[in-house]
Amino acid sequence: MTISPAASHDELAGHLARCADTGAPCRLSADQLAALLARLFERAGASAATAAVLAQTCALAEQDEARSHGLHRVAGYVATLGTDWVDGHAEPAVIDASGATIIVDARNGFAQCALRAARPLIEERVRQHGLAMLLTRNSHHFGALWLDVEPYARQQWIALTAVNSISHMAPHGGTTPLYGTNPMAFACPRAGADPLVFDQASSVMAKGDVQLAAQHGHTLPPDAGVDRHGQPTRDPAAVLDGGALLPFGGHKGSAIAMMVEVLAAALTGGSFSWEVDRSAHPTAQTSRTGQFFLCIDPARSAGHGFAARIDQLAQALLRSGQQRLPGERRYAARRLAAQHGIAIDPAALLALLRLA
Amino acid sequence: MTISPAASHDELAGHLARCADTGAPCRLSADQLAALLARLFERAGASAATAAVLAQTCALAEQDEARSHGLHRVAGYVATLGTDWVDGHAEPAVIDASGATIIVDARNGFAQCALRAARPLIEERVRQHGLAMLLTRNSHHFGALWLDVEPYARQQWIALTAVNSISHMAPHGGTTPLYGTNPMAFACPRAGADPLVFDQASSVMAKGDVQLAAQHGHTLPPDAGVDRHGQPTRDPAAVLDGGALLPFGGHKGSAIAMMVEVLAAALTGGSFSWEVDRSAHPTAQTSRTGQFFLCIDPARSAGHGFAARIDQLAQALLRSGQQRLPGERRYAARRLAAQHGIAIDPAALLALLRLA
Repeated sequence: MTISPAASHDELAGHLARCADTGAPCRLSADQLAALLARLFERAGASAATAAVLAQTCALAEQDEARSHGLHRVAGYVATLGTDWVDGHAEPAVIDASGATIIVDARNGFAQCALRAARPLIEERVRQHGLAMLLTRNSHHFGALWLDVEPYARQQWIALTAVNSISHMAPHGGTTPLYGTNPMAFACPRAGADPLVFDQASSVMAKGDVQLAAQHGHTLPPDAGVDRHGQPTRDPAAVLDGGALLPFGGHKGSAIAMMVEVLAAALTGGSFSWEVDRSAHPTAQTSRTGQFFLCIDPARSAGHGFAARIDQLAQALLRSGQQRLPGERRYAARRLAAQHGIAIDPAALLALLRLA
Repeated sequence: MTISPAASHDELAGHLARCADTGAPCRLSADQLAALLARLFERAGASAATAAVLAQTCALAEQDEARSHGLHRVAGYVATLGTDWVDGHAEPAVIDASGATIIVDARNGFAQCALRAARPLIEERVRQHGLAMLLTRNSHHFGALWLDVEPYARQQWIALTAVNSISHMAPHGGTTPLYGTNPMAFACPRAGADPLVFDQASSVMAKGDVQLAAQHGHTLPPDAGVDRHGQPTRDPAAVLDGGALLPFGGHKGSAIAMMVEVLAAALTGGSFSWEVDRSAHPTAQTSRTGQFFLCIDPARSAGHGFAARIDQLAQALLRSGQQRLPGERRYAARRLAAQHGIAIDPAALLALLRLA
């Protein structure tokens, strides 16, 4: 069952309840899902502005079938907003914006709100200098990272970002958690097609995917983690219970994780992953760290043919036998969702909406 | 046997010949080795300035025991300089340097010469804007990449660079060569110690290391390459003979290689790795592509404690069980060489010096 795009929040909630009662399948647009979640996050303690950002983050990830960063994260946001660990009403403050460097204190709010607030400045500095670097400190990032870069590629720019989080991953050769999963996301425009966008944890697996594997009783790939004794294991529960994730690609992925820690924590003036101590807030699930964000206008050096060059790269990758381009699976899910709506389990969503 | 630091070029050459005749071990400083190589590269067709840069590149890599980028590369430089494929006398030209973006045309010379020429501009722009981006096109890079970033870390800045090269590596899931080995190097200062510096190919192995494995009859690790039929192989000769290297860490390393191609080729206005056609110059060994280089002053956002924060990161890595910090093996070799000189096979070096 679908519902009119113009449906009010209460009509949406009623529709959900009816679907749950009758067992009818339920499909919502990303906007409708975001509207329901935004009201939830407001009830949980976020300002309207923050709630809207977080709700869109979850709805867009769910729409793109990035399940681990979609509805799966909602309970974590609600539980975190219910503590003093994060400030759901924080207004990010620009500390310095001289030259091409923009420094923002998120004031213990969400990094996405800082990025959104800084967007006009970023755009101005990119036009002025050919590139801009946003360094956000004192921020929480609990959402999909590609959402931060893709919009910039859609305006014909390159964007690169990285966040650290909380100790989940041992360095290569190490046995105890140190790094966060330390994802990096990169986007560039492609002529005649969606941008090339990748978003990847520095770990073999994202924490969310390990949680899903534990929920569904799946085993992990080899080299994905160690148990609490530092021994390799394929049991997701053993990794989550005092063990550690491992970086992808051995020492090379470990070096990438180190670079993320340098850029997102040391450079921004944020906390290293192992410094994040939320023990006084046992229900909180986010990390208070920093975010590195770089945006480049390729037109200055590569002219207006840049996106066409990226299309040549994409075509060459396919000719070389690469099965799928970065971002392609998300775009396919997104197109289906745009046509038919996002398939929702109404009972599960209702349960989430009752969390606050 | 060592020789006075003040020895002239001819005295050095005579010393080498005596060592070769008598079978005595021979040790040279990096400067002495560079002096010998510089004269060789000049004879091979490089300007004095270019020859000095290339000689230093080889000597410093040899000093750091990065054998694949040390004397191992000399014959390749000489063979390449003997063709029209590269211009050993090129003077790099600054195309644009507005804002924080510096665009340099290497005019078919070596990327290291462009970086050296741009250094005053880079420093000025970093001081002005907090960061600077150097985009070099129409350039050859055949040397160790960490040499480009480490000096900036020694002046308390962060540096990140990437170069593409010539098709040697298939993308993840692909079977035919597309990417170069596409290395990335990163450096940041560490209080009270050498900088943290990594330099890693996007492939499991660097091409030079596969060549050394073939020379020494070693097998490759699994997942390092495919043969000419796209089948996995551990035989270095099969990889070199029409096969392809593979990216480290599966699709994640492949995404890094893609990012390098975007930044070093598409963004700079240089050639993609698979576009490099040196078939008219069968003895040439370098690639004519581009280089991405980013330099950041962390003091603006992180204050003067940045290097101390990086030391905390290094200490945490060691506590976590990481065996060796990035760059550590090179620094150990460098310290030994500073004390005792670089151990040289005099006959082998004499043979190299006779190449031109």
